[in-house]
Parts: sequence; C-alpha cells; structure tokens
Amino acid sequence: MVLAGVDQVIAGVHLAGSAAPERFAWKVAARSLSDVAAMAACPAGMVVAAALSPDIETEWANRFASELQRIGSMFECPLIGGDIAVLPAVGDSMVFSSTVLATPDPEAGHRLVLRSEARPGDLVCVSGEFGASLDSDGGGHHQEFMPRIDVARSLHRSLGNCLTSMIDVSDGLSSELSHLSRESKVRIVIEGERIPRRHDSKLEQALCDGEDYELCFTVSATAELPACIAEVPLTVIGRVEHGEGVFLDSSGDQAPLEASGWEHQTRPAARDSSDSEGGFR
Amino acid sequence: MVLAGVDQVIAGVHLAGSAAPERFAWKVAARSLSDVAAMAACPAGMVVAAALSPDIETEWANRFASELQRIGSMFECPLIGGDIAVLPAVGDSMVFSSTVLATPDPEAGHRLVLRSEARPGDLVCVSGEFGASLDSDGGGHHQEFMPRIDVARSLHRSLGNCLTSMIDVSDGLSSELSHLSRESKVRIVIEGERIPRRHDSKLEQALCDGEDYELCFTVSATAELPACIAEVPLTVIGRVEHGEGVFLDSSGDQAPLEASGWEHQTRPAARDSSDSEGGFR
Repeated sequence: MVLAGVDQVIAGVHLAGSAAPERFAWKVAARSLSDVAAMAACPAGMVVAAALSPDIETEWANRFASELQRIGSMFECPLIGGDIAVLPAVGDSMVFSSTVLATPDPEAGHRLVLRSEARPGDLVCVSGEFGASLDSDGGGHHQEFMPRIDVARSLHRSLGNCLTSMIDVSDGLSSELSHLSRESKVRIVIEGERIPRRHDSKLEQALCDGEDYELCFTVSATAELPACIAEVPLTVIGRVEHGEGVFLDSSGDQAPLEASGWEHQTRPAARDSSDSEGGFR
Repeated sequence: MVLAGVDQVIAGVHLAGSAAPERFAWKVAARSLSDVAAMAACPAGMVVAAALSPDIETEWANRFASELQRIGSMFECPLIGGDIAVLPAVGDSMVFSSTVLATPDPEAGHRLVLRSEARPGDLVCVSGEFGASLDSDGGGHHQEFMPRIDVARSLHRSLGNCLTSMIDVSDGLSSELSHLSRESKVRIVIEGERIPRRHDSKLEQALCDGEDYELCFTVSATAELPACIAEVPLTVIGRVEHGEGVFLDSSGDQAPLEASGWEHQTRPAARDSSDSEGGFR
C-alpha cells in the first residue's frame, strides 16, 4: 500500500514572496511530511512542482532544488520527480506543491493511525507548544517547524493500538480537535490551562493561530505516555467522552469551542477530505 | 515499484484563464497521464493541487473536481488526494499540478520503456499527427488530446523488448527526438515528408509546435509494427544510426535538426531530468 498526500505553499499566503528559496523548500516539504507524521507512516519519496516568477534567477531555482534534496535525505524521503514552470507575469504569486508518498510502518504492524478511531475514555494529548507561530517580521515557528515524523512513529511503536487517533495541527488546535470529534463521532473536552503555549501566547492564540504543525492525538487511559520523545514534550490536555462537539473546561464550566482555526485555505467539495489518508493498493 | 511524475498547468501559459474548469481538469490530468503512457506503465492514482483565484466560485471548483473524478474512472487512475488553496489576488495566474502514480505493466513482464534504449538499426515511429495543436481561438488539440495509455501498453504487450525506447511529445517532436538521441547516445535521421501532419500544418510546425502529446518511439527493424492501434495510426518516420545528433533527410541531403520545440517551461537544474522516469521501491 502506498499513501499520497499533497500540500501547497503560496507566496503571499504561507510565506512572504521575498523569502529565501530554502524557506520555500522547507515549508512545502515539511507541510506534506507533517501529514505523513499524522498517520505515523513512513515517508518514501517526494515529488515537487514550482511555478516561479519570470524574474527568478537560475541560482534561486538551484538553491530551492538543493534544499529539497537535503530535506529528502534528512527524512529518508528522496526527491523522485519535479517540475518547474514560469508564471506569465512578474506580479503573479508563486505556487509550490509537494506530494509525499508514504507507506505504513512495518515496525507497527503496517497499521495506520487515523482520525476516526478516538474512543470515549481516551485521553487527548499534544506534542510541543501552540500559538504565536508567526513573528511580527513574518518569520518564526511557521517556517522553521520540524515535521513530527520520528515522534509519531516512536509513539506508535511503543503504544501500538493504544494510540487510537492522530492529526497534525496546521489550521489551529480548535479546528483539528473539531475534525477528530466529527470523524471519530465523540465528544472532546479540553482543559485550556493544560495547553502548552509558545512564548507568551494567550489561550485563544494557542487554540486558533494555527501553523503549529504539532501532533494532536488520543491514547487509551491505560497507556503509559512518556513525558517527552526526542526532547519534544508530550502533554495530556483533555479527554474523550460519549457525544459530539468540542468543549473547553474552565474550573468545571464547559463552553463549546468553535473550530475557528486560522483557515487560509478554502475547503469546498473539491478538497478531498481524505487527503491525508488517501491511498491505493 | 511505484513511479511518480508531476506536471503543471498555468492559466495564461497552458490554457486561457477563462477556460472552463473541465478544460483545466482534463489538461492537468492528461499531461501527467501522457508521461505515464511514455513508459508504457499502468496509472494507479492521481493527486491534484489547485491554486485558484479568489473570485472563483464554489461551483467552478466542484465542476473541476467532478471532471477529475470522471477522468480518474476513465483511465483507472482514481483521484486519491487533493488540495485547493486560494491565491492572494484576483489578477494572479491560477496554477494546477497533478502527480500521477503508476506501476510497471505486469502483462509486459513489469518492464518499463525508457528513453535511453534506442539502438542503431531501430526504426523511429510516431502515433497520430503533429503540428497546429493550438487553434487561433485558443482551442484545439492541445486541450482535447487523448493520453496514449492504451496505445502504449498495446504496443508494448505485442512487441515486448522490440519496443526499445519511447517518449511523449509535449514540447515538440524535434525537441523530444533530441532527448531520445542524447539519452540513448545514438544518431537519429528523420525523413520529413513521412511525418503525419495535423490539418494543413507545415513541416516546421509538425516538428516544433509541440503540445501534440503523441508517442515517439523506436522499434527493432524486425518488429512487425501494426498500421494502427485503436484507430490511432502508427507511422515510421526515420531510423537510428551510430553517432549522435538528430538530422532531417530531404532527398538524401541531411541537415542537423535543432531541438527548437515550443519550450514554454524553463529547465534549470531544478528540473529533475528523470521526472518521467522517477520511481522508488
């Protein structure tokens, strides 16, 4: 079985148009690798397309390609194909897409971790910290994040079936919790003060900013969750119950949590909701 | 073994920005499927990314996605993932990319037909007709072509190893012949008057216009080439010799043929030259 997922990076939306070629390469590859991490799968190869501005020089394109090759080596996910095209006008926004192919992890019985298997009684957990991923100068975590491939596989190999569901946090923690709740048909209750926050971000930022690219996952209550894996902290932030919806618990008062993550991508019917879980035999 | 190749379609370069969503879907999928045909491989699944203008309506995106699903069924190449994003400004050129995954043909011994195996003594052949793929109103063959998946597999299954090399003609026949010559390290001699021409196109158009998406292939001199497959005519247009370069033979006079196909895509080092032949195990 081979899985395939695609993600895009658009200049002016996901990165400043003036960002270095290495930033574009990192972000377009790392976004797709984060999708692979969410399934605890093993990346196998990457195909990248770039539509560049006509004033981009060959050196820029070469640096972009070199960085993709470096990232490919780093994640055992070689660049196996690519296409570079030139946009009609200098003002056009550059567009990059990466498709990462992946396979289920043989050391975890070829099982994939889906979004749809959270069960009442499970604990809701996250890796890392949330909020303030975008610095005021345009830099910050959103362009430097590390796809959690190793953390996800290590968790899966040690917990097995007790790792019940997982998703990566690109649009915002509240938005991804809503996906987990809907696809697993469960109620999720989060304790706001337990969410680890980046820098001095507020709770709302941690819930809604997005671009954290951390893992949000559920484990059986009996699972022994390590405090951290490869120096990445793991934190219990809530629980799974019977019912539906996502709720924020503050000292016993529960309020519905809206899925108000930072959705800069539209999601009409054309977006295949199985994009992170698509595959063929 | 899974093969993966990516191609892009840019509004204003490959299709008019005002073209119907079905045209964009057809062209982006068919370009990648043509790459699969060139290897006589079997398509297995398709992943598509689209960066749409902010003024595109949901109905447009839905029609685009429906057409991709129809094409997927038609070529046994299901749409297994996708991503739709919105460009920052209405004036930005829309960008589409499709990655087609494919496997070697089990009914041809899992062999792939490459560009590098043409041998002196072989005959050079083409499917279909060449030139004038773009009508004056922007329509024409370039947006309606049929990827030659079935023709390629049928040829391969009947000729086996006697089908020595193959490429699809996207940039122009002269340009693709130059690729075959260089990658196979052989000299190619073409008889201009043998090239089948679309409508009333001139020889130069047939050689250089591009966007024909026909097959150009070499067969052993002993191979029995059918006159046509599934109503697509097959024509011998030249021969392979020892040496290098591509030459046009007119009544015994040979002149070098420049690779002056219609290259609207740049090809800096970032373009992986193995893009149609990339794969991983």
